[in-house]
Amino acid sequence: MSGSHPYSLDFLFHPRSVAVVGVSGKQRDWGGGEMFVRALQFMQFPGPIYPVNPRAQEVMGLPCYPSVREIPGPVDYVISSIPATAVLQLMDDAAAKGVRAIHFFTAGFRETGKAELVELERQVLERARSAGIRLIGPNCMGLYCPAGHLSFNRDSPTEPGNVAFISQSGLNAEELVLYAALRGVRFSKVISYGNATDLDESDFFEYCTVDPETEIIVSYIEGVKDGPRFQRAVRAASAAKPTILLKGGLTRSGSRAADSHTGSLAGSAQVWDALSRQAGALSVETLQEMEDLLVTFRFLPRPEGRGVAIIGVGGGSSVLAADMAERLGLEVPALSDDLQAELRQFTPVAGTSVRNPLDTVGIRARDHFLKTVRLVGSSPDIHVLLIQSRIDWNPNPGQDSSQFVRQSVDILKDSVEAAGKPIAVVIWPPISLEIMGRILDFQRGCAEAGLPVYWGVERALCAISRVLDWHKQRAESGL
Amino acid sequence: MSGSHPYSLDFLFHPRSVAVVGVSGKQRDWGGGEMFVRALQFMQFPGPIYPVNPRAQEVMGLPCYPSVREIPGPVDYVISSIPATAVLQLMDDAAAKGVRAIHFFTAGFRETGKAELVELERQVLERARSAGIRLIGPNCMGLYCPAGHLSFNRDSPTEPGNVAFISQSGLNAEELVLYAALRGVRFSKVISYGNATDLDESDFFEYCTVDPETEIIVSYIEGVKDGPRFQRAVRAASAAKPTILLKGGLTRSGSRAADSHTGSLAGSAQVWDALSRQAGALSVETLQEMEDLLVTFRFLPRPEGRGVAIIGVGGGSSVLAADMAERLGLEVPALSDDLQAELRQFTPVAGTSVRNPLDTVGIRARDHFLKTVRLVGSSPDIHVLLIQSRIDWNPNPGQDSSQFVRQSVDILKDSVEAAGKPIAVVIWPPISLEIMGRILDFQRGCAEAGLPVYWGVERALCAISRVLDWHKQRAESGL
Repeated sequence: MSGSHPYSLDFLFHPRSVAVVGVSGKQRDWGGGEMFVRALQFMQFPGPIYPVNPRAQEVMGLPCYPSVREIPGPVDYVISSIPATAVLQLMDDAAAKGVRAIHFFTAGFRETGKAELVELERQVLERARSAGIRLIGPNCMGLYCPAGHLSFNRDSPTEPGNVAFISQSGLNAEELVLYAALRGVRFSKVISYGNATDLDESDFFEYCTVDPETEIIVSYIEGVKDGPRFQRAVRAASAAKPTILLKGGLTRSGSRAADSHTGSLAGSAQVWDALSRQAGALSVETLQEMEDLLVTFRFLPRPEGRGVAIIGVGGGSSVLAADMAERLGLEVPALSDDLQAELRQFTPVAGTSVRNPLDTVGIRARDHFLKTVRLVGSSPDIHVLLIQSRIDWNPNPGQDSSQFVRQSVDILKDSVEAAGKPIAVVIWPPISLEIMGRILDFQRGCAEAGLPVYWGVERALCAISRVLDWHKQRAESGL
Repeated sequence: MSGSHPYSLDFLFHPRSVAVVGVSGKQRDWGGGEMFVRALQFMQFPGPIYPVNPRAQEVMGLPCYPSVREIPGPVDYVISSIPATAVLQLMDDAAAKGVRAIHFFTAGFRETGKAELVELERQVLERARSAGIRLIGPNCMGLYCPAGHLSFNRDSPTEPGNVAFISQSGLNAEELVLYAALRGVRFSKVISYGNATDLDESDFFEYCTVDPETEIIVSYIEGVKDGPRFQRAVRAASAAKPTILLKGGLTRSGSRAADSHTGSLAGSAQVWDALSRQAGALSVETLQEMEDLLVTFRFLPRPEGRGVAIIGVGGGSSVLAADMAERLGLEVPALSDDLQAELRQFTPVAGTSVRNPLDTVGIRARDHFLKTVRLVGSSPDIHVLLIQSRIDWNPNPGQDSSQFVRQSVDILKDSVEAAGKPIAVVIWPPISLEIMGRILDFQRGCAEAGLPVYWGVERALCAISRVLDWHKQRAESGL
């Protein structure tokens, strides 16, 4: 199917009706579909949702049908949650019904390594091809697309965004969505595609490259079906949009795990590195790194150089942050004597530093802090300001937690204007329920204000350094 | 003072009375001491606490004295929170009173770079020497010692433990204590010592090496006063106890920050690396890494080899964990065919793997999980089990959060016995208040059960790998 116009996949993300096959009833092993029904209801899917189970009349308040064939209206999209043994019958029913696509949550095919199940997967594909049905999976979570009201869980945001995640693993997809959502990132399309028996990584890359709703493409890949096509697809994607690749299975044991997980042949680290470098994509080793780069692309304006001002409270933390920045190839230039003298006019001498790193009042002292940020931002050597927010410290006397959070976000918003340079905000992990509440509010406020928030200095500096490297590399290759 | 018997420092940690000089009153700049009074009260300091301020009669319910000299009873230990301009008078008063040690929270000395303040610090030291008073600081948070009822904040645990932290930075000291405490680590002595004008890093290392209450020594150092003596001290410490070094200021900008922070000359990365390697100590670059190593030394029995079983729920997460382990020099050996066949007798084929990584039922299915752990533990190639607890996922139907946590901790406790091998438990960061509550309970339960808990697979594997390297290196050097 390669070569078909990628726009042809739009129909996957905007079905008019969905049948969920395999919902609770008396029949053993036919459960699991409830999760998808609930997710569709949570997303306020506007069209009909048809639960299917031959032994149930009604499921979750919806009339239940004995088979896809017997559903009264047209069915665009099927989610299969039945055992592998029942899928060939489902293929026939779906073909008769004129279904356009099937997502197989159903697992237990090629990834088991058993010959008869490898063969079963082949037969499913054969029937799909002859009926003109496109397949997602098997052995995957399927689609999350807020604009199309599709989802595979009830925790993901209902608002759409500009990031597409092409993920061979459903769990990795869920994890990235949930964590990045807390930091304000939203998604256009998330595709968990498992064994990739029909639609595969190249199809999805080609589609996302031209999808107008997608501005950043991230991916978790275990195996590649067609190396040269994939390389072309990633190169095209990366030329159009920031593209991040996370490859699973690049070691011996990781590769064995990928084989057990999605029946993927994982390939070598060298080949992969060459591929991503030549394509101009960013390659990462963890979901966390991917999350940080996403936040950076989404919320940090591009710094015009590698000079970082480290602003915060705490000498030891400043020293370690400066070391970290320099180890990561960033610069922490000392402020000029003139700027230091201006800062000293309102900064007490004991227990502070104004050289950069700046160990000074912190965001809680509004006027002092904004004056500091304005002076630091005026330095031509400084291109980005790293602010250690210490929202985990106690509020000012007389303030409650939510006032403290609101005030902190406001001061940070004003700091962006005062500095006239990009600002990265750092938070520390919570040590209590109360602080966790504060951090959730703070992250929400920063996301609304368009500010990138990072867990710890190291993660912020890593992400900034990598994005700067990426811009440099692209400029050098004339991209 | 070098060469004095290190036991001589015991008196620092067990004063019979404390004067806190510089508490609120009408006098400007004399505040700040309340923090220390509150911390002493929180720790239930058994002796008298004397606030000192010439303009106040009573502070925080305690009678307040105009000077140290005028306190009625004997004073062992003074905490100074007054401006630097007033310290020479304080030295004279303390000498007249027979004070044994002074902790200068007071900052604004050598670290400012101003000649007159460098000179002032020298004069303070001179008066201390002639009066036989030992100094901690200036420009530091001082001592946290649960057994001696000393602390510098109100959040640290009141129970003593077996870890000493020698930290030139007060904030780094507080941060490590709070985060490590959540994971069950407790401290014998934490020493924030700032500019180290009298007592320095070598004094504290020598003391902790022979301190019977200390079993693990960790340190954050910005500058070293006497290189050869420090090298001997670290070597002796490391021969006696696991010793971890974090050096701040090893880059150009970090060194500038260390100079502004504690007036330290930071030295080169090469010299430092050689020092820690030759001494047989573990060198780290972040507080987080230090925290993870601490948890590992404290709670993970030493694995007898590098073979890791990765047990958890989720294929993509298993693949990435296996890659990570191998990149870090650990092994993820496939289980034997016999063991896999035994596991398959009770593990459904669809959506699982039993090769290692094991992507199977997770800790919520007690019997199944314990059988799995028993079989995995029986493999001679497996030396440590990494369990992805997923306590952040929803409880089983019919369970509330606290039942779920209790049951999970119980199953993990039983797993230790079932496996007969060390177990490392991995958790994921919370995405909601409810999950944060669950994680705090879970960490408490695991700490009580003596189980090491790690934030994410990467941090667990890093720590395990580093501790194994350290054991190997020590064995090779005949330690």
